[in-house]
Amino acid sequence: MEAVILAAGLGSRMGGKPKGLLKVARREILYRTMKLLRSRGIERFIIVTNERYAPLYREFLERHGFEADLVINPEPEKGNGHSLHLAKDYVSGRFVLVMSDHVYSEAFVGAAIEGNGLIADRMPRWIDLGEATKVKVKDGRVEQIGKNLEDWDAVDTGFFVLDEGIFEITEELENEKNGDYSLSEVVERAKLPVTFVDGLGWTDVDTPKDLKRARKMLVFTAVKGTGDGFISRHLNRKISTRISYFLVERTTPNRMTVVTFVLGILSALLTLVSLPLAGILYQLSSILDGVDGELARAQMRTSRFGGYIDSLLDRYVDGTFLALLAYSALREPLWYLIALLALLGSVMVSYSTERFKAAYGEDAYSCISALRMIPGKRDERIFLTMLFLLYPGNVSIKVLFLLLAILTNIRVALTAYFVHKKVSYPKTI
Amino acid sequence: MEAVILAAGLGSRMGGKPKGLLKVARREILYRTMKLLRSRGIERFIIVTNERYAPLYREFLERHGFEADLVINPEPEKGNGHSLHLAKDYVSGRFVLVMSDHVYSEAFVGAAIEGNGLIADRMPRWIDLGEATKVKVKDGRVEQIGKNLEDWDAVDTGFFVLDEGIFEITEELENEKNGDYSLSEVVERAKLPVTFVDGLGWTDVDTPKDLKRARKMLVFTAVKGTGDGFISRHLNRKISTRISYFLVERTTPNRMTVVTFVLGILSALLTLVSLPLAGILYQLSSILDGVDGELARAQMRTSRFGGYIDSLLDRYVDGTFLALLAYSALREPLWYLIALLALLGSVMVSYSTERFKAAYGEDAYSCISALRMIPGKRDERIFLTMLFLLYPGNVSIKVLFLLLAILTNIRVALTAYFVHKKVSYPKTI
Repeated sequence: MEAVILAAGLGSRMGGKPKGLLKVARREILYRTMKLLRSRGIERFIIVTNERYAPLYREFLERHGFEADLVINPEPEKGNGHSLHLAKDYVSGRFVLVMSDHVYSEAFVGAAIEGNGLIADRMPRWIDLGEATKVKVKDGRVEQIGKNLEDWDAVDTGFFVLDEGIFEITEELENEKNGDYSLSEVVERAKLPVTFVDGLGWTDVDTPKDLKRARKMLVFTAVKGTGDGFISRHLNRKISTRISYFLVERTTPNRMTVVTFVLGILSALLTLVSLPLAGILYQLSSILDGVDGELARAQMRTSRFGGYIDSLLDRYVDGTFLALLAYSALREPLWYLIALLALLGSVMVSYSTERFKAAYGEDAYSCISALRMIPGKRDERIFLTMLFLLYPGNVSIKVLFLLLAILTNIRVALTAYFVHKKVSYPKTI
Repeated sequence: MEAVILAAGLGSRMGGKPKGLLKVARREILYRTMKLLRSRGIERFIIVTNERYAPLYREFLERHGFEADLVINPEPEKGNGHSLHLAKDYVSGRFVLVMSDHVYSEAFVGAAIEGNGLIADRMPRWIDLGEATKVKVKDGRVEQIGKNLEDWDAVDTGFFVLDEGIFEITEELENEKNGDYSLSEVVERAKLPVTFVDGLGWTDVDTPKDLKRARKMLVFTAVKGTGDGFISRHLNRKISTRISYFLVERTTPNRMTVVTFVLGILSALLTLVSLPLAGILYQLSSILDGVDGELARAQMRTSRFGGYIDSLLDRYVDGTFLALLAYSALREPLWYLIALLALLGSVMVSYSTERFKAAYGEDAYSCISALRMIPGKRDERIFLTMLFLLYPGNVSIKVLFLLLAILTNIRVALTAYFVHKKVSYPKTI
């Protein structure tokens, strides 16, 4: 399949720069759209732009190695229906049509590309409703479309899955309107079918303020969260996404991985000085631990190696913290034995889910939802540790280690049990 | 592709039982061949047998759910060339021809099925040369074939990749010889092309003694060994394969997993009683640790869950051993700290390779050969531990923990380094 991208608009409110080349979370809007479409099987792109922007888009395409045809619209001041018409000879069969100034999340593109006709959103979360193009739907097709509709069902997302039949309509309008007609006129006359994709991440960019909203959308939809425990869902993520929003234009995921690791190791060393401070810093590093992944997804910089190293470093932070905490707070061999088993269990919680993925090629948490319910995940262990360290005493540290030793190792046993149950009565595996 | 299996022979030296249904390592010979062929894309089987054996084969096929046509050869006492001829109307295009009394390893079938014509072995390891059918090759084709050739190049493996053209030859021989001619006569007259597949696991079964050899072949070619360290390669595997050979008809891999785990935990508990005995039992459990995998592969009972559980249990044996050893031999907090880091490193050695597989979907050892060279793998750690425990002293246990803490954690750091190098300059990933 091919994708046509309309990028001929002059973007008067953005200082005359081509909007598709504006960066949000350190990536050009069009880089995001094209990458996401390519990951869904779109191989060829047709970008309709104007004479002034063409060299900028050409340089962009070369820099990122995208396969695309540039089509020049010599009259960009006319309605954007004409821009679509100019793509006529470049596509055949079904194709995707998107706007260069819309920012889409991965989830949105994944759902939208499976749809047909106009993709519309009945629960738009990240847009300015006043500026949005509304759609009135009747019998699954567009009845009316426009900014100022009073009675409407959904909002136009700027994403379409069309076929070449649409050019019969543009041909008609070319003759009637002397080339000056909007895409909305094409859509309305074609009575396009409507597919609803509701509440997922997308927005459009008309003004500098919109860029901020797009950034927010990207960060807040960048939470993976399959392995998140109770504390992560209700506390850590609420803070980490705000930190990510603050940092997303300023730093890279790799740098955050290093910072988080250093803070974690510092918190472990702090156990030699002050247990309450150590616990608080440990919990802070646990919150920050979400940021590198969030930045990576928002900036489209995820890498398997990044995930790999992050995972090793987390284990080392936890291991070092428990080892130094035991060293600074315990004396009797029996309690050291329990600390050794707590450390073993802590690492084994991750081992048991990662080893599942190594064996079955699927994420353990997505595959076995029971694993999300059992306590003992990292965010929960760290929060518990912090609580016990706030008012440390000889007994409380021992109780902490005992709790950790029991909680983690039971969790590993339950993981093995649920994996066994899953593979004995498989649905997906 | 289809496969024709010749199973009409009366097997006079095996007590009149159909040889294809004899079990080696707890699986019928034909079960092995058909499973391996099916895993290589063969969907349909044609089994040529005699009237007496047909019900037995029918029951076998139903029990295992194989798709197969049974073709009856009413005159099994005639040469087996006629049996091949009877399959004529059941195959088209290219097909595989195998003997029901040959036992093949996975590696052999994988290589043979890519070949053409007669698959021959210039370095047969697991057969009785006196009984073997030899082949003289000229210009890549069979010149002469027979048991009593004096001058020969390779041995007939009973595995052929043919096409329907072969039935022109059998048609000729049917007329000339009144249906009584051997497969060798067909092969020689067709001047079949020869593909050499040398030194891999295969053998044939004519006598009860041959069953023993087939068993040996299956066990000794069942070593996976990609993650084996120095001690495993030069000591543990030499013993474990002999134990597997002894047990392969007697027990299942799952039972061995349990026995090995129990022995490992016992060795950990023994640290409370006698360190030398604990070390020796630990090393014994390390040797036995190879057996469940060897049995599983020899018996074609490998399962991802088996590998998963085995891997978790190994970590628990190691963790428990180190924890109890520290508990029984150490006193000072500083040495407990080192013990905690040794335990962390021990688990992390496995974590770092399994997490690699989770991220990249490939075996770390196959992918990054440097990982095989760095010391610190389980077999090496356990052997080292045993050595230090043979003459235990206050200092020697401390040195052991210090060595383990350094060795394992350096190994993890090197693993991360080599993974980074690999993904920065990828060849396969």
